[in-house]
Amino acid sequence: MAVELKNLTKRSENYSQWYNELVVKADLAEQSAVRGCMVIKPYGYAIWEKMQHELDRMFKETGHQNAYFPLLIPKSFFGREAEHVKGFAKECAVVTHYRLREAEGGGIEVDPDAKLEEELIVRPTSETIIWNTYKNWIKSYRDLPILCNQWANVMRWEMRTRLFLRTAEFLWQEGHTAHATEAEAVAEAQRMLGVYADFAENYMAVPVIKGVKSETERFAGAKDTYTIEAMMQDGKALQSGTSHFLGQNFAKSFDVQFIDQNNQLQYVWATSWGVSTRLMGALIMTHSDDNGLVLPPKLAPIQVVIVPIYKGDDQLKQIDAKVEGIVAKLRGMGISVKYDNADNKRPGFKFADYEVKGVPVRLVMGGRDLENNTIEVMRRDTLEKETRSCDGIEEYVQHLLDEIQQNVYQKALSYRNGRITSVDTYDEFKQKIEEGGFIMAHWDGTPETEAQIKEETKATIRCVPFDTYVEGDKEPGKCMVTGKPSKCRVLFARAY
Amino acid sequence: MAVELKNLTKRSENYSQWYNELVVKADLAEQSAVRGCMVIKPYGYAIWEKMQHELDRMFKETGHQNAYFPLLIPKSFFGREAEHVKGFAKECAVVTHYRLREAEGGGIEVDPDAKLEEELIVRPTSETIIWNTYKNWIKSYRDLPILCNQWANVMRWEMRTRLFLRTAEFLWQEGHTAHATEAEAVAEAQRMLGVYADFAENYMAVPVIKGVKSETERFAGAKDTYTIEAMMQDGKALQSGTSHFLGQNFAKSFDVQFIDQNNQLQYVWATSWGVSTRLMGALIMTHSDDNGLVLPPKLAPIQVVIVPIYKGDDQLKQIDAKVEGIVAKLRGMGISVKYDNADNKRPGFKFADYEVKGVPVRLVMGGRDLENNTIEVMRRDTLEKETRSCDGIEEYVQHLLDEIQQNVYQKALSYRNGRITSVDTYDEFKQKIEEGGFIMAHWDGTPETEAQIKEETKATIRCVPFDTYVEGDKEPGKCMVTGKPSKCRVLFARAY
Repeated sequence: MAVELKNLTKRSENYSQWYNELVVKADLAEQSAVRGCMVIKPYGYAIWEKMQHELDRMFKETGHQNAYFPLLIPKSFFGREAEHVKGFAKECAVVTHYRLREAEGGGIEVDPDAKLEEELIVRPTSETIIWNTYKNWIKSYRDLPILCNQWANVMRWEMRTRLFLRTAEFLWQEGHTAHATEAEAVAEAQRMLGVYADFAENYMAVPVIKGVKSETERFAGAKDTYTIEAMMQDGKALQSGTSHFLGQNFAKSFDVQFIDQNNQLQYVWATSWGVSTRLMGALIMTHSDDNGLVLPPKLAPIQVVIVPIYKGDDQLKQIDAKVEGIVAKLRGMGISVKYDNADNKRPGFKFADYEVKGVPVRLVMGGRDLENNTIEVMRRDTLEKETRSCDGIEEYVQHLLDEIQQNVYQKALSYRNGRITSVDTYDEFKQKIEEGGFIMAHWDGTPETEAQIKEETKATIRCVPFDTYVEGDKEPGKCMVTGKPSKCRVLFARAY
Repeated sequence: MAVELKNLTKRSENYSQWYNELVVKADLAEQSAVRGCMVIKPYGYAIWEKMQHELDRMFKETGHQNAYFPLLIPKSFFGREAEHVKGFAKECAVVTHYRLREAEGGGIEVDPDAKLEEELIVRPTSETIIWNTYKNWIKSYRDLPILCNQWANVMRWEMRTRLFLRTAEFLWQEGHTAHATEAEAVAEAQRMLGVYADFAENYMAVPVIKGVKSETERFAGAKDTYTIEAMMQDGKALQSGTSHFLGQNFAKSFDVQFIDQNNQLQYVWATSWGVSTRLMGALIMTHSDDNGLVLPPKLAPIQVVIVPIYKGDDQLKQIDAKVEGIVAKLRGMGISVKYDNADNKRPGFKFADYEVKGVPVRLVMGGRDLENNTIEVMRRDTLEKETRSCDGIEEYVQHLLDEIQQNVYQKALSYRNGRITSVDTYDEFKQKIEEGGFIMAHWDGTPETEAQIKEETKATIRCVPFDTYVEGDKEPGKCMVTGKPSKCRVLFARAY
């Protein structure tokens, strides 16, 4: 097993294989017996739970409440919103029957008599069923806004799947809000994008570019899609969260109107926003290295692991006694600590295991340390080791965790910022895109040119960034492909 | 709306209708557009979240970790365990296709070319997919025990549904553990039953009887099913949680073996245990009254509501200022408080709304109170009102919340204990069962007699209780139906 851990493919050799192996070796997830569906293992799920916990707190602090809507959606609901149907009524899991029976000659089979009158779709997203419900909740402006979120599983029958990044079933949250005015709905969609960016940068330590999607890349049924885009270590973009201003599209499709303060009937304005277990992929690919996972301390299920190295039970008992005090003090500071004195695994195995699992800080105490009142400290992000006095070690570790959190963010930020370039010609674009990274370039704003670029270079427009990333990127210019006028540079990249 | 709230059917008139109305009027849940599937509304979901939070903490304190397994299970998996297939391969949602397409002449239809080779079943419970996964996780005794829990949605295509009590889709947790020895697995199944009983009594304030199910009522595939049984206010039983000792059944069906300490291959021992949103039904039916919901403070999303009664903005501002200090102090004590000074609803409406929603403590401050430094305190469980000085009101409220928690439990306990009777003849049984309540009687231990009793009286054996509820119930006797020998009395009731 320890040997297996060491056999991780190097990122420089095959980035894609490195990722696939790491997810499995770090015990995060694995393929299940069901095509495209994953099993999220306890260690992976513990990271997801930490993400959920922080996001849920942020949603509640911004006034949202959780609710739960049905897993299955009547097929006809998808047809109601003209754009939505094109985007989502495609590769879906379809429930057609509601009973099994014993087959003649053994085994079980679907009972042909138990066919549903209308097929039910396992939700790929819940706008339709939720707006069909909101119709009953909203009568007057007094009922608005509605600020709901749902933590749920969803399914999209993807043909090519990869653990966390693209799976047939995934876990996510989907916020669905209803407002009396357009301005309020737009503000909500932007506020939630801000929450996502805050979470990505301050908890995941993943720097993101906030912006708005082109029409082509918009959510099916949205007026505008806002996005946060992160850069992975292979220079590819990963869309990490989206927030949609839906206008009155779903209100009109599901006939959701309210009486405003002037006693006039109006259609309701909507938003929806979501992040998913895909964030696990972003987290892994942003920070990890050839030795395994690197986790930002704020999302690490185990922040500190302590391993004893000892000869004989007597020495172990002495180390146990010494470590007990350190563990208690660290826990009192709200730090999650594991003391691994299990005797069925050698220290070398433990070291490799916690390294591949990305535990931010490792403390090791041996016989010599016991004599000297010292302890060895290793930080996972830089792999630096030092031996320190046990006195004040808890405060030092607390400080170190903060430093690691900052360091992994700064490292990711430097990496990304060093790979945003600006190009003016399509030839240069074609050359640069092969090197990976983000490219800021002028585009004429048409779906046709966008499609041509995608076809010829596999690059897509990730967003029109809100902030400035290269000098003058908000100034007008000429499309690199057609030479037509362009309002500003937009962000291109190859993407997951 | 305020009028609607008052129109709640009385329990004595029609208990069933009272329940159905209450769930809707208290804003807990509603029927969705999908047959048998409910929408859990924000207020209902907030209670469920509090339940989840406490249970999850208890699971983790007993060494369990969360994980996530696929929603869809291959049809053939259900056929592997002989008993399990009889129990679960029945009324299930069956996924047969994975694509929709545009229909000729508009609309969308299922693409007949996208038929799955093997149908997939929306999980009714996850033993099969989980044991198929555990096969890869378990090689040696060093890999044991595995102590996993999953929070998930499941589906059982119930024909007659009622909000929370019996719905096609419901939310639950399912623990699935793997052990090296039979003794350890039995101990685990019993420990988790203890956790459920602790939660039911100390958080939900619902007294429960712990016991073991008869063979007929056992989980399909279990060697033993342990249960907690609660009594609703109509004298009917509600099974509130079950924990199963599965023996080696699933390990054998999915070929899960491990090498023990003596280097011998052994099949793994298993347990599974679950509670669901059905607990919401138990909570509602145990405590609530003709005025609406009564919530035990430990599970109340809002523990204290404060309502001002004022004339004019000036007085409201004075009350706001006074209440602000009380709110801050209560929050500092960890009490969830809502100060409802919204001016678009009259106090009478607010009173009725919070009453039907079961908020444990209501504080009201009016102009007179402002002058006298007093505040009106109402407790929801007894509806008693008193006017108290504002000095020390926070400590008083904290104490009152504890008292309400105790009181609702004691009230439910007295009610239940007053309705457990002991009978010796079948005639007496038939008479008593009409009055509702729990009956302790002798039974010969055969499924045939059990079936006869169910057929003739609609009563089922809820469990063989672990503790003593009527004098001598653990002593042997004669079956009330057949006169054959009986080891002890067992608990009968009509049940949800």
